[in-house]
Amino acid sequence: MSHKQESAFDIIAFDADDTLWHNEIYYKQAEEKLAELLADYHPAEFVVQELFKTETRNTAAYGYGIKSFTLSMIETAIALTEEKITTEEICEIIGFGREMISADVELIPNVRETIQALSASHMLMIITKGDLLDQERKVVKSGLGDCFKHIEVVSEKTSDIYKALLSKYEIAPERFLMVGNSLKSDVLPIVAIGGAAVYIPNGTTWAHETVSDEEAQKNYYHELEDIGQLPELIKNLSNPKE
Amino acid sequence: MSHKQESAFDIIAFDADDTLWHNEIYYKQAEEKLAELLADYHPAEFVVQELFKTETRNTAAYGYGIKSFTLSMIETAIALTEEKITTEEICEIIGFGREMISADVELIPNVRETIQALSASHMLMIITKGDLLDQERKVVKSGLGDCFKHIEVVSEKTSDIYKALLSKYEIAPERFLMVGNSLKSDVLPIVAIGGAAVYIPNGTTWAHETVSDEEAQKNYYHELEDIGQLPELIKNLSNPKE
Repeated sequence: MSHKQESAFDIIAFDADDTLWHNEIYYKQAEEKLAELLADYHPAEFVVQELFKTETRNTAAYGYGIKSFTLSMIETAIALTEEKITTEEICEIIGFGREMISADVELIPNVRETIQALSASHMLMIITKGDLLDQERKVVKSGLGDCFKHIEVVSEKTSDIYKALLSKYEIAPERFLMVGNSLKSDVLPIVAIGGAAVYIPNGTTWAHETVSDEEAQKNYYHELEDIGQLPELIKNLSNPKE
Repeated sequence: MSHKQESAFDIIAFDADDTLWHNEIYYKQAEEKLAELLADYHPAEFVVQELFKTETRNTAAYGYGIKSFTLSMIETAIALTEEKITTEEICEIIGFGREMISADVELIPNVRETIQALSASHMLMIITKGDLLDQERKVVKSGLGDCFKHIEVVSEKTSDIYKALLSKYEIAPERFLMVGNSLKSDVLPIVAIGGAAVYIPNGTTWAHETVSDEEAQKNYYHELEDIGQLPELIKNLSNPKE
């Protein structure tokens, strides 16, 4: 008999933004700067609300990521000032986006140790939305690039898209574990196709990514407070009788 | 003995923009509109040159695609008018980008027949740069989505990136054929790693995609005038003695 621990999973996939590193915080900071820039026209809360509406409307055309967000900030600023915003201020908004692109990658606590440990025993991958180039840059900046065998940037995280990925990598759903901070994107679509999912909530989940309690309760998934608890959970799932 | 034709290739990959469908023409149209918008400030040729410089400078931060191009148009317009451009005109520029996103996909002659025929005998894929969402949309609009087993959107087309793709799909380089309109992106990096490549020049190749004659002559690849000639070439390469 082998002493080698058998895992329940052939591959463990991680969402990136706000699962491995902070991301939403940079969007919030840019929103605050935009609100400040438009403070003579509207209260901050209204600016943020209108920006959110513009983003939602633009997602179909632009997709996710910083460039899309920058274009939405410009559009919102022009609309909310009735075209009175100056060209100089539009340059500032472009600058908000550029700062986001060049921002440091700050890992969430316990990510480094957990990913390094799991990469010794499992094939790891990243499945994320957003700009391809931006996500690749963050993987490099994170210093964890060598831990991940594959990086998949997808336009949406639906059950169909996950199904296509599993088929591409020839992985059975029940041998696949997805870990992320969004019930809507990382957890429910995986559970729906027979995969396993771990939900690790983050303080600043994007409003686009929320689901109703009712929707969440219909589905079974694991929830952790901290990614540092993941290796223990995987061990328990792999050896349920221990 | 089997009558089934053996192919020299396990997978045939196609570049998308200006190989399968027109693309550069929409960029040229947007450039012309921008030049017209700035006609009171500078001659058209100068506007196009400066836009090209901005794009080149921005590629490292923004990557390829329409959103990146839109942000570069805005930046160029602001710089070339010394911030005198109006907010209304910036809206127009955003509109140029939106028109590109919603443009029809016009297949290059003989693409439909060739792709449909080859998809019956080969596994086909697309390897392209640009915005993920935009490329996916074009694949759908092309009506050829079912012919391609995989769509890979990459941030750059270097030998290393092609090598990583071949390893991901477990394809030997000598069993891989890449078809595209750019020597720099679709042909030379493939030849460099021992793969086969077919170059099909297009009238409107982007200035970023050109290479010197000297660079091209050092490498061996096939050149066709029309994608309709591809099945015959593949047949000849698969049965060199016939």
